[in-house]
Amino acid sequence: MKAIGLIVEYNPLHNGHAYHIQASKHAADADVVICVMSGYFLQRGEPAILPRRTRAEMALRSGADLIIELPYAYSSQHAHWFARGAVSILDDLGAEAFYFGSESGNTEHFLQLVEFMENHAAQLQKELRCAITKGISYPAAQAEAFLSLNPPEHLPDLSKPNNILGYHYVKATRLLETNILPKTITRVGAGFHDHVFQEDTSIASATAIRKMLVENANISTVRPFLPAHVYDTIEQFQKDESPFYQWEAYYPYLQWLLSTRSAESLAHIYEAEEGLENRFIQAALKAPTFQAFMQAVKTKRYTWTRLQRLAVHLLTGTTKAEIAEAFGESARPQCARILGFTQSGRGYLNIVKKHTPLSLYDRPPKNKNTQQWLDERAARAYYSILSGAGRVAKWKEEYTQPPLYLKEEVPKARKI
Amino acid sequence: MKAIGLIVEYNPLHNGHAYHIQASKHAADADVVICVMSGYFLQRGEPAILPRRTRAEMALRSGADLIIELPYAYSSQHAHWFARGAVSILDDLGAEAFYFGSESGNTEHFLQLVEFMENHAAQLQKELRCAITKGISYPAAQAEAFLSLNPPEHLPDLSKPNNILGYHYVKATRLLETNILPKTITRVGAGFHDHVFQEDTSIASATAIRKMLVENANISTVRPFLPAHVYDTIEQFQKDESPFYQWEAYYPYLQWLLSTRSAESLAHIYEAEEGLENRFIQAALKAPTFQAFMQAVKTKRYTWTRLQRLAVHLLTGTTKAEIAEAFGESARPQCARILGFTQSGRGYLNIVKKHTPLSLYDRPPKNKNTQQWLDERAARAYYSILSGAGRVAKWKEEYTQPPLYLKEEVPKARKI
Repeated sequence: MKAIGLIVEYNPLHNGHAYHIQASKHAADADVVICVMSGYFLQRGEPAILPRRTRAEMALRSGADLIIELPYAYSSQHAHWFARGAVSILDDLGAEAFYFGSESGNTEHFLQLVEFMENHAAQLQKELRCAITKGISYPAAQAEAFLSLNPPEHLPDLSKPNNILGYHYVKATRLLETNILPKTITRVGAGFHDHVFQEDTSIASATAIRKMLVENANISTVRPFLPAHVYDTIEQFQKDESPFYQWEAYYPYLQWLLSTRSAESLAHIYEAEEGLENRFIQAALKAPTFQAFMQAVKTKRYTWTRLQRLAVHLLTGTTKAEIAEAFGESARPQCARILGFTQSGRGYLNIVKKHTPLSLYDRPPKNKNTQQWLDERAARAYYSILSGAGRVAKWKEEYTQPPLYLKEEVPKARKI
Repeated sequence: MKAIGLIVEYNPLHNGHAYHIQASKHAADADVVICVMSGYFLQRGEPAILPRRTRAEMALRSGADLIIELPYAYSSQHAHWFARGAVSILDDLGAEAFYFGSESGNTEHFLQLVEFMENHAAQLQKELRCAITKGISYPAAQAEAFLSLNPPEHLPDLSKPNNILGYHYVKATRLLETNILPKTITRVGAGFHDHVFQEDTSIASATAIRKMLVENANISTVRPFLPAHVYDTIEQFQKDESPFYQWEAYYPYLQWLLSTRSAESLAHIYEAEEGLENRFIQAALKAPTFQAFMQAVKTKRYTWTRLQRLAVHLLTGTTKAEIAEAFGESARPQCARILGFTQSGRGYLNIVKKHTPLSLYDRPPKNKNTQQWLDERAARAYYSILSGAGRVAKWKEEYTQPPLYLKEEVPKARKI
């Protein structure tokens, strides 16, 4: 059985994602598509708008066959660690290649980019250090350092978020010396950061869709941009009076914590570097909303997502020591949770289980390692915006729910 | 000017309290009644149902002349430290005597009780240690040890909460070698722990009144038990759609914190002893309400109030090191905040300020000592159940509001 991998968040899954699944499967002529998906908190440092299981189901119904959780220790992380964790899992699961979206769709250019960076490593480091002293963020400094080397024009532009991720994916295959091959596939439609819909297309960015869902009681506006089953699920979710999971709903907790602790007692939280904890406390004392809070803490020195990730780690109580422990010596996930599968996915699992170095599990064990313990705390933090009884019920499900099993045949994604 | 002191919480102020103010003033023929009042969190380990300033105003309008805050470091505390902090402040403010309520109203008996305890200290210690090994709470063990010495029958019964407080008040005067004299005055009406109203009296316990306020949308049931101005204030407070401050409203924060931190990271919180932090975490994972949480953590070994106090310290983030620092070497408050005064109270303040060892302040300084820093965090935690904008406004008021000044003449309390 030929398997390929995708690295996803599906926040929420939209037509562009559905296209990505189908196009990758087709390009590789694969039997099985494995998605490594962030769980409750995402790479950009925010809660997923819909629970993990709901998003896993959306993926299965859009053509994916096996959904594996990217552990929290790797998911709410710098692109470097995020890529490393995800690529490592897909490699360990025997996927022949993984497919990531890019504007160019040219894999060769990404490989050349990574080679170029390797060949100029020393000079790049120097330029990077120099750029950082200007007080700009790490990604901005990296983009600047890259440009200072006068790279060939056809190399992907490192100032674009998707290209940064692509770069780290390809780099991870080299650092990890994987068998898995990186492949990129042309993205269609909206850019990553687009906040508005483009009316002449059925593709909108997940950011634009989230914004519409959160701000607009009439969710039908997003219908054209989603596979029908995704839209139905979201509509039902809203009817059940469940809130969408979004930062503003968590802000009371963050604000309370920051206003009642000393900076020293927060300095052990992962990513609380260079006195950021002080800056966070001062902002929380004055900002009535999460949006205002973020605007108050934002500086040129740190990206918005970097700061949001610290806020996530405050929510989950993740410490520097715990991330170090979860990473261990290899900084490769040693185990991963199975979230769901189709019949093909299950068949593939039964084969791969025999030789994968990864310890796969469907429900967390009583005695958890640090990686699993962080996942559990992420789930607890995620559901903390529900009522007391609601949280307790959801926390219990973490232990009792078996992975999703989608038996029915999956229809092809709509033509777009 | 002759001043006397009262040690109060007014949660809320009821007819029994109004009587206590008037009767004490009358008994002492005093010009000025000073109340040392717990701020936002109380001795029994709970948020005050109404904000500090509202309760201070109720006191002034019921005949008190000067309201001083009992700092958090002493207010959410064992009776021993609570008494010590309050008596120390009243002594430092030059009050000739303080008046506490008791069933017997016999001061001599309390003095004899303290002497009896001192004379039997060694034996008492031995009996106490022995009683504690049975796994009962400290107050229960103390009551048992006391009884094992066959004390004279007329000595106050140490199993009653009010007598325990009275005992500690009198003991504090001896430990602190105060000039201030302890005096007790007969309480009228309801017992401390009574949860139901006695229909034939206009006195109900604060506990019963709170229960009625919180559980009943129709608050007029409590009208007979409150001075008219207190009832009006409460009615207005409820009309303004402010919530009553009560544990259930804070439980989401407590539950979130306990479910997302390791036991080790909570072990530095004040009163987290003997693995209580573990017990708290386990209970929070299953209990949908604060009431259920408390029932789950309750054991014979700890009183309800002792456990609630740990919960309060988790809310305010108060650590063992901070309490030790706030206490310093003397475990006497070095400074205290003025909450309000009448004209007489202000006159008295102007005189006493010249020679009191206590540093009095009306608004907290920018550079706070540990005691003041804990008070500030208590205010922040207290208001954390409001909206983001509501909290920020209230936190600001902590710095900007001058003490209350009640100019009008205070009417006598209703005859009861």
